[in-house]
Amino acid sequence: MKVIGHLINGTLNTDGDSAAGSRLQDVTNPSTNTIIGKVALASKATVEEAIAAAQAAYPAWRNLPTAKRVRIMYRLKALLEQHANTICEHITREHGKVFNDAMGELQRGIENIEYVCSAPEMLKGEHSRNVGPAIDSWSELQPLGVCAGITPFNFPAMVPLWMWPMAIACGNTFVLKPSERTPSSALFIAELGIEAGIPPGVLNVVNGDKEAVDTLLIDKRVQAVSFVGSTPIAEYVYSTATGHGKRAQAFGGAKNHAVIMPDADLDNAATALMGAAFGSCGERCMAISVAVAIGDKCADALVAKLTEQIAVLQVGDGMDSRNDMGPLVTPAHLKKVEGFIAAGIEEGAELVVDGRGMKIPGYERGNYLGACLFDRVTPKMTIHSQEIFGPVLCIMRADTLQEAMDIINTHAYGNGTCLFTRDGGTARYFSDNIKVGMVGINVPLPVPVAHHSFGGWKRSLFGDLHAYGPDSVRFYTKRKTITQRWPASSQREGVQFNFPSNG
Amino acid sequence: MKVIGHLINGTLNTDGDSAAGSRLQDVTNPSTNTIIGKVALASKATVEEAIAAAQAAYPAWRNLPTAKRVRIMYRLKALLEQHANTICEHITREHGKVFNDAMGELQRGIENIEYVCSAPEMLKGEHSRNVGPAIDSWSELQPLGVCAGITPFNFPAMVPLWMWPMAIACGNTFVLKPSERTPSSALFIAELGIEAGIPPGVLNVVNGDKEAVDTLLIDKRVQAVSFVGSTPIAEYVYSTATGHGKRAQAFGGAKNHAVIMPDADLDNAATALMGAAFGSCGERCMAISVAVAIGDKCADALVAKLTEQIAVLQVGDGMDSRNDMGPLVTPAHLKKVEGFIAAGIEEGAELVVDGRGMKIPGYERGNYLGACLFDRVTPKMTIHSQEIFGPVLCIMRADTLQEAMDIINTHAYGNGTCLFTRDGGTARYFSDNIKVGMVGINVPLPVPVAHHSFGGWKRSLFGDLHAYGPDSVRFYTKRKTITQRWPASSQREGVQFNFPSNG
Amino acid sequence: MKVIGHLINGTLNTDGDSAAGSRLQDVTNPSTNTIIGKVALASKATVEEAIAAAQAAYPAWRNLPTAKRVRIMYRLKALLEQHANTICEHITREHGKVFNDAMGELQRGIENIEYVCSAPEMLKGEHSRNVGPAIDSWSELQPLGVCAGITPFNFPAMVPLWMWPMAIACGNTFVLKPSERTPSSALFIAELGIEAGIPPGVLNVVNGDKEAVDTLLIDKRVQAVSFVGSTPIAEYVYSTATGHGKRAQAFGGAKNHAVIMPDADLDNAATALMGAAFGSCGERCMAISVAVAIGDKCADALVAKLTEQIAVLQVGDGMDSRNDMGPLVTPAHLKKVEGFIAAGIEEGAELVVDGRGMKIPGYERGNYLGACLFDRVTPKMTIHSQEIFGPVLCIMRADTLQEAMDIINTHAYGNGTCLFTRDGGTARYFSDNIKVGMVGINVPLPVPVAHHSFGGWKRSLFGDLHAYGPDSVRFYTKRKTITQRWPASSQREGVQFNFPSNG
Amino acid sequence: MKVIGHLINGTLNTDGDSAAGSRLQDVTNPSTNTIIGKVALASKATVEEAIAAAQAAYPAWRNLPTAKRVRIMYRLKALLEQHANTICEHITREHGKVFNDAMGELQRGIENIEYVCSAPEMLKGEHSRNVGPAIDSWSELQPLGVCAGITPFNFPAMVPLWMWPMAIACGNTFVLKPSERTPSSALFIAELGIEAGIPPGVLNVVNGDKEAVDTLLIDKRVQAVSFVGSTPIAEYVYSTATGHGKRAQAFGGAKNHAVIMPDADLDNAATALMGAAFGSCGERCMAISVAVAIGDKCADALVAKLTEQIAVLQVGDGMDSRNDMGPLVTPAHLKKVEGFIAAGIEEGAELVVDGRGMKIPGYERGNYLGACLFDRVTPKMTIHSQEIFGPVLCIMRADTLQEAMDIINTHAYGNGTCLFTRDGGTARYFSDNIKVGMVGINVPLPVPVAHHSFGGWKRSLFGDLHAYGPDSVRFYTKRKTITQRWPASSQREGVQFNFPSNG
Repeated sequence: MKVIGHLINGTLNTDGDSAAGSRLQDVTNPSTNTIIGKVALASKATVEEAIAAAQAAYPAWRNLPTAKRVRIMYRLKALLEQHANTICEHITREHGKVFNDAMGELQRGIENIEYVCSAPEMLKGEHSRNVGPAIDSWSELQPLGVCAGITPFNFPAMVPLWMWPMAIACGNTFVLKPSERTPSSALFIAELGIEAGIPPGVLNVVNGDKEAVDTLLIDKRVQAVSFVGSTPIAEYVYSTATGHGKRAQAFGGAKNHAVIMPDADLDNAATALMGAAFGSCGERCMAISVAVAIGDKCADALVAKLTEQIAVLQVGDGMDSRNDMGPLVTPAHLKKVEGFIAAGIEEGAELVVDGRGMKIPGYERGNYLGACLFDRVTPKMTIHSQEIFGPVLCIMRADTLQEAMDIINTHAYGNGTCLFTRDGGTARYFSDNIKVGMVGINVPLPVPVAHHSFGGWKRSLFGDLHAYGPDSVRFYTKRKTITQRWPASSQREGVQFNFPSNG
Repeated sequence: MKVIGHLINGTLNTDGDSAAGSRLQDVTNPSTNTIIGKVALASKATVEEAIAAAQAAYPAWRNLPTAKRVRIMYRLKALLEQHANTICEHITREHGKVFNDAMGELQRGIENIEYVCSAPEMLKGEHSRNVGPAIDSWSELQPLGVCAGITPFNFPAMVPLWMWPMAIACGNTFVLKPSERTPSSALFIAELGIEAGIPPGVLNVVNGDKEAVDTLLIDKRVQAVSFVGSTPIAEYVYSTATGHGKRAQAFGGAKNHAVIMPDADLDNAATALMGAAFGSCGERCMAISVAVAIGDKCADALVAKLTEQIAVLQVGDGMDSRNDMGPLVTPAHLKKVEGFIAAGIEEGAELVVDGRGMKIPGYERGNYLGACLFDRVTPKMTIHSQEIFGPVLCIMRADTLQEAMDIINTHAYGNGTCLFTRDGGTARYFSDNIKVGMVGINVPLPVPVAHHSFGGWKRSLFGDLHAYGPDSVRFYTKRKTITQRWPASSQREGVQFNFPSNG
Repeated sequence: MKVIGHLINGTLNTDGDSAAGSRLQDVTNPSTNTIIGKVALASKATVEEAIAAAQAAYPAWRNLPTAKRVRIMYRLKALLEQHANTICEHITREHGKVFNDAMGELQRGIENIEYVCSAPEMLKGEHSRNVGPAIDSWSELQPLGVCAGITPFNFPAMVPLWMWPMAIACGNTFVLKPSERTPSSALFIAELGIEAGIPPGVLNVVNGDKEAVDTLLIDKRVQAVSFVGSTPIAEYVYSTATGHGKRAQAFGGAKNHAVIMPDADLDNAATALMGAAFGSCGERCMAISVAVAIGDKCADALVAKLTEQIAVLQVGDGMDSRNDMGPLVTPAHLKKVEGFIAAGIEEGAELVVDGRGMKIPGYERGNYLGACLFDRVTPKMTIHSQEIFGPVLCIMRADTLQEAMDIINTHAYGNGTCLFTRDGGTARYFSDNIKVGMVGINVPLPVPVAHHSFGGWKRSLFGDLHAYGPDSVRFYTKRKTITQRWPASSQREGVQFNFPSNG
Repeated sequence: MKVIGHLINGTLNTDGDSAAGSRLQDVTNPSTNTIIGKVALASKATVEEAIAAAQAAYPAWRNLPTAKRVRIMYRLKALLEQHANTICEHITREHGKVFNDAMGELQRGIENIEYVCSAPEMLKGEHSRNVGPAIDSWSELQPLGVCAGITPFNFPAMVPLWMWPMAIACGNTFVLKPSERTPSSALFIAELGIEAGIPPGVLNVVNGDKEAVDTLLIDKRVQAVSFVGSTPIAEYVYSTATGHGKRAQAFGGAKNHAVIMPDADLDNAATALMGAAFGSCGERCMAISVAVAIGDKCADALVAKLTEQIAVLQVGDGMDSRNDMGPLVTPAHLKKVEGFIAAGIEEGAELVVDGRGMKIPGYERGNYLGACLFDRVTPKMTIHSQEIFGPVLCIMRADTLQEAMDIINTHAYGNGTCLFTRDGGTARYFSDNIKVGMVGINVPLPVPVAHHSFGGWKRSLFGDLHAYGPDSVRFYTKRKTITQRWPASSQREGVQFNFPSNG
């Protein structure tokens, strides 16, 4: 049985039962619930070893010219493209998502690496000549030191690539702790990073659970923590990390609404919703889980079209890319999602399509759940107030755009949203006034491209700065401002007790 | 007796004993310790009233074109220049600093307002055409809502001007809580803001103590808190505010070292140190409180020159601008500083000049302390490890630049530092490798100019983003990213279950 | 009779018949054609005197801290607001435009000054740490030296304010040559600049004609020329100035089309067109002079609505702000516009409303022409291919948006255009694919605001960089890039014959 | 005999005698003056064929998402690294420079491609919300169309890579005309570009002479021309291209001075000068051709050290990388350089080292010239006023830094310069006040790195914008500014005849 270990100081430890005493935990294939590996759960000592390696590698790495640090990214991009199949097999086998969907995920991760190639431009400081007589001032964006990333099960390849490539391009060193449910792709990508030329200690991967997380959050040598996961953990990570003097950004849960205006092309909107709601079984923080139709006529038509399309949706093992949807990640998660469905029925929502009880021939033990469609969902129902993270789409009905926007604006989350319309004025009013960080106009999954930044509002993000793109440069650096003059030595200068100004 | 009240919803309440039940506290002149006013300490209810006013004013203010919001700043600048004497009298009478020093402070505040006039430029988002086929994406820097500022006694005019002008220029509304020891100038400036055209509720001032602070930190309507003060309170403010879902930046204490290289012009360096150490009685977070001389020869000469200059330093009432230094802010603070001096002697430092016991004719009850000079201070002494915030300059001796830098880099604070040298290479090595946020090369008080940003490292700043300048725009706004396409209605589009990418 | 002279080296020479031998030329009021002043036409020697003053003032001005240079702009803004009436009377009396329209022009000029207050931010260079081992590199945007501006009759206050405030804020000195037909407002504003604190020689104004222009274009001390006027002169200015080693930007003529889609609100579109076509008698380079209606139904309705609105349009002396339109600038220009109208009729266009022969009681000798409306104009007609610069609106009819865009895209000019629609997709297709520099969506006069830049495409602009806004900073500065290292003196370095790279 | 043809519309025409009737010209190896190939000189018709291909490819290429255009650059970088030896053999065989020097050149070109990978970031426009009530405005940097590059013999691989990769990344299509003396490397690199995925017509290469150049300068379809070469041709290219309505930037000659202060480390300065003066035989526009020593003592020592180092400098065939210097490019150029040496002697300069008459065994017919060192050169001598472009270093003597700077500042060229010193103040004074575009402090060849921009001042550059780096993005795009509002259709709006402003 393969052991998925740690990558510390450039060395892959495939023996989980190392001196540092990692515990082992099963890794299963959600399509069959068979055990396909053992992941080593790092002890505090092992995590500290990784931190120490990162700390030791920092001074030399920081002083390497930026262009040289970044050059590794070009090689890494090529290696990722070369090994895409292997990576995506890891993703599908451990997470369950359809292989082609994994390819999309990986491609997005590669696009983040492409953006990292802009680091020499993005790291430029601001230089001012003559802020005073023959006085110059400039700021530098200096690296922080050792940074850490803690990443979720649902994008095992992409989310780590939001973090460490930019972090190290900025001159930091890094310790990554991927999800222990889907650990293989991140570890394999890190190995490719080493192959691409990342020096020992600059990038380290430790697998683990809460013990590893807490060690990263508390250790004084760690300067910054990036986290993606659920809101309760995000809040814990943020408060613990900042409470220990670290910079932190913690991305949490979501409840993403689509609003469908009567002037929208309903066929295209329904098609777009299918992918946005059921792709990757809805296990995406940007998944559309609620569609708010404006007017009953629009709602009725939408429900009809969705019902029709759900009927032909293909569910099955992710390695077959003809499938549209694979299994949920674990039996426990399946049970949790089914609990939400029961609550929805209980609270009075109308279950138009019930995907429960689905059995896939040959994969009867897999965590399968068919697409579910609720109609007449209301704001206070559990299936609206909470994140389900499963293939459950809720239809809400509103009379006006403003009513739909009020529903969204009063929700606890504010990650993503989208609007379907043809009207320029409607689009502008919505995008201006909606209290959500990422907005799509006729774009169902408005994940910003790699040269923009990712981040929600309200309880979807704890921290000031968004992930990847321009904000990530600011997150992984701190500003140093230098004010410099070169007085002539022969000239006597007067004492100045007053506060210096340009007055 | 004048009561210094609150400015809420455009109305100045000079009756501290208002319905909301503010308590009253003496405001004294530190030069005489006579009571010159009563400051109203806002109750929770009063602060909530201010927050409610800010909340109510927000929607209209947010939607006003940026250029119109900013236009008020031009008028405010003119009013501040016109009323500079009144403002600086408030500062000197309540804080004690010399009037001309107050003028320097005010001028810096005005420079921050000048920078705010750049807001239409700084608020520009990033627009990308064709991030996908006929898909555009752009980000907007949208305002946060109600923001709060909590400011210290030592820069009663300037530090509020770091905060609320940019905050409101970005479209936010604001509640300011100035120091209750020096409340008048900030309140008066806010009144000038109203006169300049700030609509009711957009800028509110509440005076108060911990009750007011805690209300601001906890109230859900407050979206962001800026704080300047001591490190323990900064840490409390940061953790409390972020723990209640707010964005926060909290600027704390400092211990700023100057390093004097043997090649520096020692006369000029000594003169520069005089102002940087003793200006405003050392009650500046950017004051130089430690001078590290490289080599004993350099140290001996420096001590001699400083001793000579201290001998002619003029201490006295701040309203006489011929004085170099006024009183400390309170008897309690005087006592605290004297305690540090005693500890320094106790721990073995050499008190070369003893400023204690100074009596100013006509101001015998004032909180006066003459300039003090310690030599042979070592890293672990209390007078080195802690912030004194008084007119006490410590000389340390190091053999090499590296030794001096190690002293600085291992200190808990990292606000400001400066180096005196003529050598380009020495300057570059120092500014690159010193772990301090604001660095001066032959500039003793390297406070960044208004178009750069202010911020220390380590325990001098809790938060990601610096004060004023470019970082303040980012602090007072949140990013919204919009992705937009306009599909032709006649064209049928296929469903896309895979994660969207540019691949 | 008042003589409008030159402002050289801080001194206003109101005696046009000075030693330098300026010739004198009448300045007339277009509403009456009475002579209201004499403008001095500078000789080559006088212009060279101004250039010499600017050259002499340059070194000290360049070295003044940017913040100090910019501070003058705040005072100038206040002075312009204070003296707005005087300035606008100058404009109306010399140009003829309605007083309130002049106020709009002046306000735009003031907004350009507001943007200039961003210069400390905009002048920041780019700083890179460690472009090689311990090698830093940064760029500075340094001033050019003496710059010149040559401005047109139609915006006598605003266009000069596009130029010299930013030029001098960047550290340059300036010689302005306003239109000799409308010279007073620019000269008066320059005097206010001196009052605001611009030192002698930094800003100079010479009135004149071709002799003055040619001197500015040829003199070696002049480093850059900005011009706004007609296309043939713009082309001449650009080629002559660049041929003499100067940087140049020359803004020429225009033919701005509005496209009206059937889904637009036709009432509002017609109202918008009225102002855009007839405001300032159409003597604006951003005036809409052609409206392309999509479909005959749309065209017919539009013609009907415009005819109706033209019927109530008030024409008369500009000092009465109840009027909508004043006289044309000169009898010669009136004759030229009438010639175009005759040509239009001749070539087969349908003159729906004929404004010729208008007599305003009390102003019978003024250059008055009522609003004219042509229908069924085709691309090759003279009234379409050439700029009329008068109150003549041409209606064209197209079957599709693409046909309308082809008309625009094949026109020689590419200054401004606008589209009326409610459809987001139509707007995006138009703004993306139209070959015009400034595009309005439901905005009839899409003059960019002051924090964006103004510039057309094709034969509307000769030069790379647009006017005002961010581009103007780049135009008035040149890049200097410094690469710096500080090798240790004790360390022997090897010779490097190969081309240095980061490889 | 190999014919070096054209690459048009994706097809390499190796038959120079094609239908379009190219003439053929010898390509020789400067080390032996043997003919190694025939280069096809394109007729007007052939160039027009290339332009037509570029024009046809433009619309689709422009609309490809930027990220997709840029993705080709990653592949191209990998291909260039893979084929580096082949490319550098082409360079050395045709140009003569030492192979390792060619490798340095190629690496620089690759670094330019790396910067092009930042294009999605650099192409971002500026977006402003609410420039007026519910009015937004943004600018886009749109491509120009067909662009052309004309490149010199001395950097046959690098200079083309300054141009076309960024041009096409911005959405333009391109026609490159490399030097007909050294055509092979650029053509080969373009083939690799096609292999990397550049579609047919997007990048075209035509070889040729004045006929080809003039066709590119005059054809209306060409929107922009970048040129690098000598100053007379640069001036011709700039005026012809701009005279035909094109954007242009034309980089010309240089005379780059190093200033050596007495406090500099003279050994290191001399070593640095050896490479900067004699690397690539001085055939670099950034070569240091004059060293100004401050004080005779410094000058004497410098001459001594240089003489010593020249004695061991290895001259020989470029394919042997142990050589420091190869032959000059042509017999004609050798003769021209020898003419300068004769003139120097004639005019009174002291020829300390005479490299004339050098014969390399086995390469007796090559264009060899040994390193030459002149002392006591004065400003008006021909060898100072003119660019030699050969291995001739002139020593000048000045008493003060200011005197040295006056020599530089009054020279017609202003490309590069450098200063050797240890003093921070000296460096700052020099870099601030020297009238040269690229400045090195202890960096002898201050060619800006790829993420900064390259450009001289005065007669070294015709045009506003520098090459590569940020300026190149601005050069290869034009600004379009869109102002957009979406009025409610139900709301009647009033007519606005006045000029619109934010007042």
